[in-house]
Amino acid sequence: MSTELIDLPLANILNEIEKLDTDSLLLVADGKVWEKYGKYFDLKIIQKNKKIHLWKTPEGEKTKEFTEYFSCAEFFLEKGIHRQSYLVAIGGGATSDFAGFVAATLLRGIKWSIIPTTLLSMVDAAIGGKVALNAKSGKNLIGAYHSPEKVWFDYNVLNSLSSTEIRSGKGEILKYCFLDKNIYETVLSSNGDLSLIIPRCAAFKLALTNEDFKEVGKRKILNFGHTFGHAIERVYNIPHGEAVMWGMALIFKLFGENNLLGVLQKLKIVLDWPEQDPPWLHKTFPTRDIMAYLVKDKKMIDNQSIDLVFIKEVGTCEIKKIKLSKIEDLLIEQESELKKFRL
Amino acid sequence: MSTELIDLPLANILNEIEKLDTDSLLLVADGKVWEKYGKYFDLKIIQKNKKIHLWKTPEGEKTKEFTEYFSCAEFFLEKGIHRQSYLVAIGGGATSDFAGFVAATLLRGIKWSIIPTTLLSMVDAAIGGKVALNAKSGKNLIGAYHSPEKVWFDYNVLNSLSSTEIRSGKGEILKYCFLDKNIYETVLSSNGDLSLIIPRCAAFKLALTNEDFKEVGKRKILNFGHTFGHAIERVYNIPHGEAVMWGMALIFKLFGENNLLGVLQKLKIVLDWPEQDPPWLHKTFPTRDIMAYLVKDKKMIDNQSIDLVFIKEVGTCEIKKIKLSKIEDLLIEQESELKKFRL
Repeated sequence: MSTELIDLPLANILNEIEKLDTDSLLLVADGKVWEKYGKYFDLKIIQKNKKIHLWKTPEGEKTKEFTEYFSCAEFFLEKGIHRQSYLVAIGGGATSDFAGFVAATLLRGIKWSIIPTTLLSMVDAAIGGKVALNAKSGKNLIGAYHSPEKVWFDYNVLNSLSSTEIRSGKGEILKYCFLDKNIYETVLSSNGDLSLIIPRCAAFKLALTNEDFKEVGKRKILNFGHTFGHAIERVYNIPHGEAVMWGMALIFKLFGENNLLGVLQKLKIVLDWPEQDPPWLHKTFPTRDIMAYLVKDKKMIDNQSIDLVFIKEVGTCEIKKIKLSKIEDLLIEQESELKKFRL
Repeated sequence: MSTELIDLPLANILNEIEKLDTDSLLLVADGKVWEKYGKYFDLKIIQKNKKIHLWKTPEGEKTKEFTEYFSCAEFFLEKGIHRQSYLVAIGGGATSDFAGFVAATLLRGIKWSIIPTTLLSMVDAAIGGKVALNAKSGKNLIGAYHSPEKVWFDYNVLNSLSSTEIRSGKGEILKYCFLDKNIYETVLSSNGDLSLIIPRCAAFKLALTNEDFKEVGKRKILNFGHTFGHAIERVYNIPHGEAVMWGMALIFKLFGENNLLGVLQKLKIVLDWPEQDPPWLHKTFPTRDIMAYLVKDKKMIDNQSIDLVFIKEVGTCEIKKIKLSKIEDLLIEQESELKKFRL
């Protein structure tokens, strides 16, 4: 079952909810987001036709902890839900990852839809049905594949995001530019207008994930920049998309792809992303942390090697099996140079 | 992907494990079962080709608690598993339900196989890919669909089961007799030889679940006897299959199916099941508990009705949508008679 991508001003959300074929609605909302947009969900009106139960999540990745998951699942079950109960998530990627895992596992799976409220979730987390919790050993290590029925987009919500949140989403947009030539060209001619770029990215990811839902083949290219990115995100505690940007830059630099580094620089300018020092400049270079992360990484294909995504040219990529020992050698060899490049 | 049902003396399990295409084996074993059969898993031999991590579960339904799930998932993740890691479960239905949910959600799903060690799990829980945890509100309310690759059967393990455990399995076998005429005839001519009956039941359930994996249609007939059975199991704390037997008897009695009650009685004799008082004889009749259970039941189709499985004649059944209020009326109306029938 594929997902419908729908442009919708939040002011019209009640009409959409009215149309859902259920008498039992489970709302999972990021607490902060609910303060801002809860007003559009007039519970009194919805309650005329449906029972509603609202669960508010804490901010960010804290949502995706085991204990939060249990509490939420027990809360909904306690209310007496049934198989036609329908879950609607509103929030960023952490909220939709979490809510999707709840929807995937409640009564062995109920239907759900998402209203993404961050740039990052509009172009990435809300699309493709990968849902997850975090474990102590790493992010997203517990999860399922469970596609939402609909993703509703209201670009106006972008106006209230911080520049850090916007930049995090742009990190994923940069990634898509390398995977798809159309997106690359759209971004170059967009003047940075995100409402032109978002639908392209969401549709690209959706098509790819429809083709390879369980990530046994082509879908893996979406991990471009993420293998190092995840390690960088954890070590330096920087936003996801920003870590992905550095993850891509590090791959280019490590394997001598100077052309592609140039392309990355050009795209960053179009997207109004200032030149920055790398997060490790005045800190330890993350060789050890990257290696420790790789060993536990889900994309590892056996205990010695890992699948890494490489870009041949804009729009063309390939997945190569690389020995962990080779990556470690390269990181150590080039450490002093990698350490100080600006982008 | 369908499941292979394989007859295998446990003494030969090492050969089978050797053949699994993985270098990382996660064993989930019922602690008591492991004391008895752990000797067949010579970890030193396995370790020549694979890393092994062993997680022992507590006995029975306690295994299926949230906290146990977390601890087990974190334990395996901590060890550094990967997508080709392979889980093998050995134990009864609680162990395989639990282990299957772990396999379904670790890294969004890894492959797994089962060695069922109770009669109940051989004919039911190990087949069909429904895996689950228990919530405070009820059994199996959190779960997934994740088929095992193989189920290995060693009928010798039945010899060490208690008569209560055997009876619990026979409750499910009785159920299959009403759903399938071949099984009915096999049982009648079996002289109670379980090694003749088990493969029929397992193959019947497997075929049905292959046809309707996510229980949107035909698979629902497997719930025959379970809707009331689950409530009876909880209230009187009796074994699952025994509760299912009383669940079927109650449906027959409630809807005046005296013929089928006679068939049930005849089958019980063949299977060497002694005549018993109902569990509620010197206790409260469970009308209130059944109703409370039905309201929370997963098979409820909306807030007023429930899908109930009825037997028209041996081998032919139908699912009817029944109003909860009607069931309550019938239970109250016939309470004094239902209360005292022996079977």
